[in-house]
Amino acid sequence: MGLDEAAQKPHDRLSAWLAADMEAVNLMIRTRMASEHAPRIPQVTAHLVEAGGKRLRPLLTLAAARMCGYDGPFHVHLAATVEFIHTATLLHDDVVDESAQRRGRPTANLLWDNKSSVLVGDYLFSRSFQLMVETGNLRVLDILANASATIAEGEVLQLTAAQDLATTEAIYLQVVRGKTAALFSAATEVGGVIAGAPEDQVQALFTYGDALGIAFQIVDDLLDYGGTSAVIGKNTGDDFRERKLTLPVIKAVAQADADERAFWERTIAKGQQAEGDLERALEIMARHGAMEAARADALAWVAKAKTALAVLPEHEIRGMLVDLADYVVARIN
Amino acid sequence: MGLDEAAQKPHDRLSAWLAADMEAVNLMIRTRMASEHAPRIPQVTAHLVEAGGKRLRPLLTLAAARMCGYDGPFHVHLAATVEFIHTATLLHDDVVDESAQRRGRPTANLLWDNKSSVLVGDYLFSRSFQLMVETGNLRVLDILANASATIAEGEVLQLTAAQDLATTEAIYLQVVRGKTAALFSAATEVGGVIAGAPEDQVQALFTYGDALGIAFQIVDDLLDYGGTSAVIGKNTGDDFRERKLTLPVIKAVAQADADERAFWERTIAKGQQAEGDLERALEIMARHGAMEAARADALAWVAKAKTALAVLPEHEIRGMLVDLADYVVARIN
Repeated sequence: MGLDEAAQKPHDRLSAWLAADMEAVNLMIRTRMASEHAPRIPQVTAHLVEAGGKRLRPLLTLAAARMCGYDGPFHVHLAATVEFIHTATLLHDDVVDESAQRRGRPTANLLWDNKSSVLVGDYLFSRSFQLMVETGNLRVLDILANASATIAEGEVLQLTAAQDLATTEAIYLQVVRGKTAALFSAATEVGGVIAGAPEDQVQALFTYGDALGIAFQIVDDLLDYGGTSAVIGKNTGDDFRERKLTLPVIKAVAQADADERAFWERTIAKGQQAEGDLERALEIMARHGAMEAARADALAWVAKAKTALAVLPEHEIRGMLVDLADYVVARIN
Repeated sequence: MGLDEAAQKPHDRLSAWLAADMEAVNLMIRTRMASEHAPRIPQVTAHLVEAGGKRLRPLLTLAAARMCGYDGPFHVHLAATVEFIHTATLLHDDVVDESAQRRGRPTANLLWDNKSSVLVGDYLFSRSFQLMVETGNLRVLDILANASATIAEGEVLQLTAAQDLATTEAIYLQVVRGKTAALFSAATEVGGVIAGAPEDQVQALFTYGDALGIAFQIVDDLLDYGGTSAVIGKNTGDDFRERKLTLPVIKAVAQADADERAFWERTIAKGQQAEGDLERALEIMARHGAMEAARADALAWVAKAKTALAVLPEHEIRGMLVDLADYVVARIN
């Protein structure tokens, strides 16, 4: 590997290695999101699909399939499937969260309306479903059906767990699997299944995606409180203001004394926040080592992800997936 | 058939004949809509699923499968699948239409919130998907995936076609297939497919469901303008007030003179409605025989539905399906 390559982010190296496959995926996405009869559909989807997301999920599917020696056509369908599911989820999330921006652009629900976001999301779900049925692989369908159910259940759970100080780490994990990890693990697992990989490799691909997704989300949680640097940046505290029970908060709540408990009750459960509360929250979390503990959890999930890869074939892609896992936590190192 | 039986509605006779199957479907629905982790889910779904809908779609699936001699377990999964898809669609529809009532009860979006309706709808879609995958029948999956896409596309089309006087009967048909007929035809078709019925019978079951669904929707359109009785009832004119391009209006618009055109422009396209406009709309439609023409269309679709049944096995259920088709238009006779 040359110096230039080593300097590239693992995600970009994967993209470069899988460039031809990704081009096929992008073409399939554009073709399948078209609607002969309802021009609103490509308007809404193009806005989102072409907004320059990282396409991490389809890359994971392609990577898994190629690493396991697949040379058929259906990894492209499956990669497009996971991207459609992801995009549909984003459309519905923006309605649920009443978001105004995504990836620095106005959201579809703001540009058009909530109706379009709900219905075009449904359309993308149904398109993703058609794509996966085309593979003719029942196991793949089973995996993606279960992932869809986990995603939907996690979203509802998040809705009811929000602002609830009784939220445990177990519930948090379930929500995170719904938000992120279930689609990551399905993306990698179906890549192995479509390639006809042996059972232990398929299981390892699931574990890799699951652990990567969880680590990814924990790191996001940490970054929202300024990472472990304790320096308050311009986006610091969004989760606090939105009263989200993220991992560092859950850890701090679990160890709270009466005073701190009252603080969390007021700011998170009741949402009565005042000047200086974010700083106090950071202090309390620091006192209990909550950020450090969450960071240790993220590192443990990354270690699990990398360990899982050991049973997979020696392959250039495998090294990139190891680096990708490290890169996820590098953001908080 | 005794006198009592003959007096029963065809739908109730089907329900009685298929009572044991329907009980299995109801049990499956209750079991599968449960969520261990997110209690909001069964709250929302129970509200809707147990609100006493007619369960017409699952009945159609059971009827088709039994008529074609099926005695395996999977018609129950498929019947539950179509009811879940239907319920999910209703949840999302109520968000899109901002409805306050459904079946005489407050809608879920009013009782809880739009968020719950969107996410629980997604949950039911994913559950329906798991149920159909369990049948292990790829053709059934293909049919239901295509029906889902038609439904979603039709909903978006309806959104953009609403209040647009350029809406043609062809576009109307597409919207109606999305709203109603695509799930009816999928419901009957998968019943035949799971039973391993010969190809001509499967095709006939599709045609029956499709034609029945279209007739059903046209009749609904007519009833909204008081049927053909020209008597204005208490719910008459909802579609007019909501500026919907339903079949009688489309037919009247197609024949409008300059004056009438201006009337439709003002009341439907621009939504400027005043006292007496509904009566004027009825007059214009009567002048062009628009209601009668729409009624003739409904009758033609019913005839098509009944004709299709001819290739199906002689069976008690077949007679009930013939009667069901007649019953759909009896509401406007």
